[in-house]
Amino acid sequence: MERPGIGRGSNSAQLRRYNERLVLQRLRRAGEASKADLARAADLTNTAIGAIIQKLDDLGLIERVGKRHDGGRGQPAMLLRLNPKGAYGIGVRLDRRSIETILIDFDGRELDRISYDMVLPQPDVALDMVARDVQLLLRRLAPAERERFAGIGLALPYNLGAWLGRLDLPAETFRNWDDFDFAVRLEEATGLPVFGENDGNAAAIAELFYGHGRRVDDFFYLFIGPAIGGGIVVQGDCLRGSSGNAGDVAVLAVAPGRLASSPKTADGRELLITRASLNALGRHLQSCGVAVASIADLQDAFTAGHPAVQEWIDDAVEALAPAIWSAISLLDVPLVIVDADIDGGLVDALIRRLTEALDDHAPEARRAPRILHGTLGRDAGAIGAASLPMFFNFSPRASILMRGGDREFETGGTVGFAGLT
Amino acid sequence: MERPGIGRGSNSAQLRRYNERLVLQRLRRAGEASKADLARAADLTNTAIGAIIQKLDDLGLIERVGKRHDGGRGQPAMLLRLNPKGAYGIGVRLDRRSIETILIDFDGRELDRISYDMVLPQPDVALDMVARDVQLLLRRLAPAERERFAGIGLALPYNLGAWLGRLDLPAETFRNWDDFDFAVRLEEATGLPVFGENDGNAAAIAELFYGHGRRVDDFFYLFIGPAIGGGIVVQGDCLRGSSGNAGDVAVLAVAPGRLASSPKTADGRELLITRASLNALGRHLQSCGVAVASIADLQDAFTAGHPAVQEWIDDAVEALAPAIWSAISLLDVPLVIVDADIDGGLVDALIRRLTEALDDHAPEARRAPRILHGTLGRDAGAIGAASLPMFFNFSPRASILMRGGDREFETGGTVGFAGLT
Repeated sequence: MERPGIGRGSNSAQLRRYNERLVLQRLRRAGEASKADLARAADLTNTAIGAIIQKLDDLGLIERVGKRHDGGRGQPAMLLRLNPKGAYGIGVRLDRRSIETILIDFDGRELDRISYDMVLPQPDVALDMVARDVQLLLRRLAPAERERFAGIGLALPYNLGAWLGRLDLPAETFRNWDDFDFAVRLEEATGLPVFGENDGNAAAIAELFYGHGRRVDDFFYLFIGPAIGGGIVVQGDCLRGSSGNAGDVAVLAVAPGRLASSPKTADGRELLITRASLNALGRHLQSCGVAVASIADLQDAFTAGHPAVQEWIDDAVEALAPAIWSAISLLDVPLVIVDADIDGGLVDALIRRLTEALDDHAPEARRAPRILHGTLGRDAGAIGAASLPMFFNFSPRASILMRGGDREFETGGTVGFAGLT
Repeated sequence: MERPGIGRGSNSAQLRRYNERLVLQRLRRAGEASKADLARAADLTNTAIGAIIQKLDDLGLIERVGKRHDGGRGQPAMLLRLNPKGAYGIGVRLDRRSIETILIDFDGRELDRISYDMVLPQPDVALDMVARDVQLLLRRLAPAERERFAGIGLALPYNLGAWLGRLDLPAETFRNWDDFDFAVRLEEATGLPVFGENDGNAAAIAELFYGHGRRVDDFFYLFIGPAIGGGIVVQGDCLRGSSGNAGDVAVLAVAPGRLASSPKTADGRELLITRASLNALGRHLQSCGVAVASIADLQDAFTAGHPAVQEWIDDAVEALAPAIWSAISLLDVPLVIVDADIDGGLVDALIRRLTEALDDHAPEARRAPRILHGTLGRDAGAIGAASLPMFFNFSPRASILMRGGDREFETGGTVGFAGLT
């Protein structure tokens, strides 16, 4: 059961790579900083920071933005920032009902996107579509920019063929997905490196790399979509788990729902996905006579003040509060981040109720975690996918030092590019 | 919210220390190994492994155990193993009803122990008792052995003043404990380094360092004592959490118990501690007319085949199965280790029922984890405490490389001793 990646000795190349990425992280968090600021923030010597800055500059990952006069008599300090054009990544998000392919720059800004709202087709059909869309997006980059391409991130539900009954989807289409290694096939089809994660972890990584994670290193992340997904961020890294499926919040054990529309259970057991998902909201609205054709209809029902939405919020919170308390008790993180496929005030309303309920549920001598609204909203999936090559290539993670077995791409550099030619 | 320890640059001293500890770990796992075996296992060059072996030998942490003839024509290889006399540690375990102080060697073998079965007295009284017992145990070591003393480990419940109602203990005695920093006071009283952890994490660390952790790097650990504690081991390290209280399984949310003796809840909520603890078993036995004065009486009732024990097992398993599924879904570890303060077959009976129940509860497309009986039994607490100085001084953890802010003691060496003089 011992994994091959763990337990390898560490060497100075890994150390250099780690420190380079650490400086990138400090700069991402600071926005702008001088060499001296970075030396302090990363606790590195002037010599070490000088060599790292030089390297990152040569790689085009940072740029100068002017000088800061501190009011003292010394030389004004040159300020540095990340170069938004320093790297590019593509994200592919496959959900049971949509396909999105997105191109982002090093700042996480969307440059272009191609998306389809459709029930996922057979895997080989989807592969052709995505491979073509990747090529279309790459054409948006000039040749010099393509050399700065970090790779493709792929985010999809851990097990596409599961939960179809609960999500009201036909089983036939999805069976073939469970035996199809989309990441490997996409790599073959495009000749580009593909970094795969389940969708919950990808969204959590996007929040870590581009969102609240610029200020906090530990949080529990929940994303409410048609299903519910999540991710666990500890010490600035995403917990992957032995089979890459940590943070699988959909299957957290909860009590059965109390809505008239809640599925009946014979054994008094229910799973979080059945209560705290947009699918549950849609089911409840439909049972109350509201036609629901798309996610936008859910948001409209909330905006219109339909009482069924509030009923669902109450029921979802009743499931979420003990589930979150259990997670927090295991993980001991001070922050929960909640994001969703819809907004229009619904997420904030849910968070307000959840904050109250967590206080109500607090076990003796325990303090409720803070809850924050995620920064990416419905883009968490696509940006999450696209942030994977950025995260795995440019983030200072313990596994770099420990040769943790993740795929790391290095062509000449110690922070690396896929090297399109 | 950013912690100071994270995000520091890494240097070559840390790297050397990590590699030394990695070699110690490989040797602990292998039992006996040649230099070439260790170079392979740790993926280090011959030069690097040679320098490390020399260093570990100078420090007296390893010893030669003879030569192995491989049947080939080359020189027979010298076999190495850990020197049991290479290091010593003391563990102090405080529970609400007992105090134990134990001396172990580098192999984790108990050399001596002093223990009291008593409701915990006021903290200053306990401090005097423990400080005296530490001195008594240290006298068991010869002067040369004392130089190999790695420190004191302290394991106690995260919040001694909580759960008193559920554990049928008086509140007055325990209030003072919550404001008393026993680790700091013990350090002042003895002049020795003290490594503190909550009792669940300490027991998990003992299992990692001296038990099943010799073969597996990822597991969820549960210890059933008067209360229930736990710990999370990921990639060979124990998840500590933002406030040092990760793995706080006592407060996992479960449904109310179904025993006649189960406390009634107004709101349909219960916590795991109320159902899956020896206190719950004792309460149920007493409600069935069995006098329970000590933990031994619980084991006797099981051995005598009292039906109330089986009733409690059923109820505890009904609480544990969904709680474990939730934990496994969050953590994605393939193994659960269950240990307890009693044995006589009771833990194995519980594990058998739990294994069945986990299969029954498996969510769609998920595989149940393996469950193993822990290796330390009722000694998990005391050995757990004593394993803390061993673990923090000699285990290859990512935080060493990342300067994770843990206390690491180094006097001259890169693996270190407290340096009693």
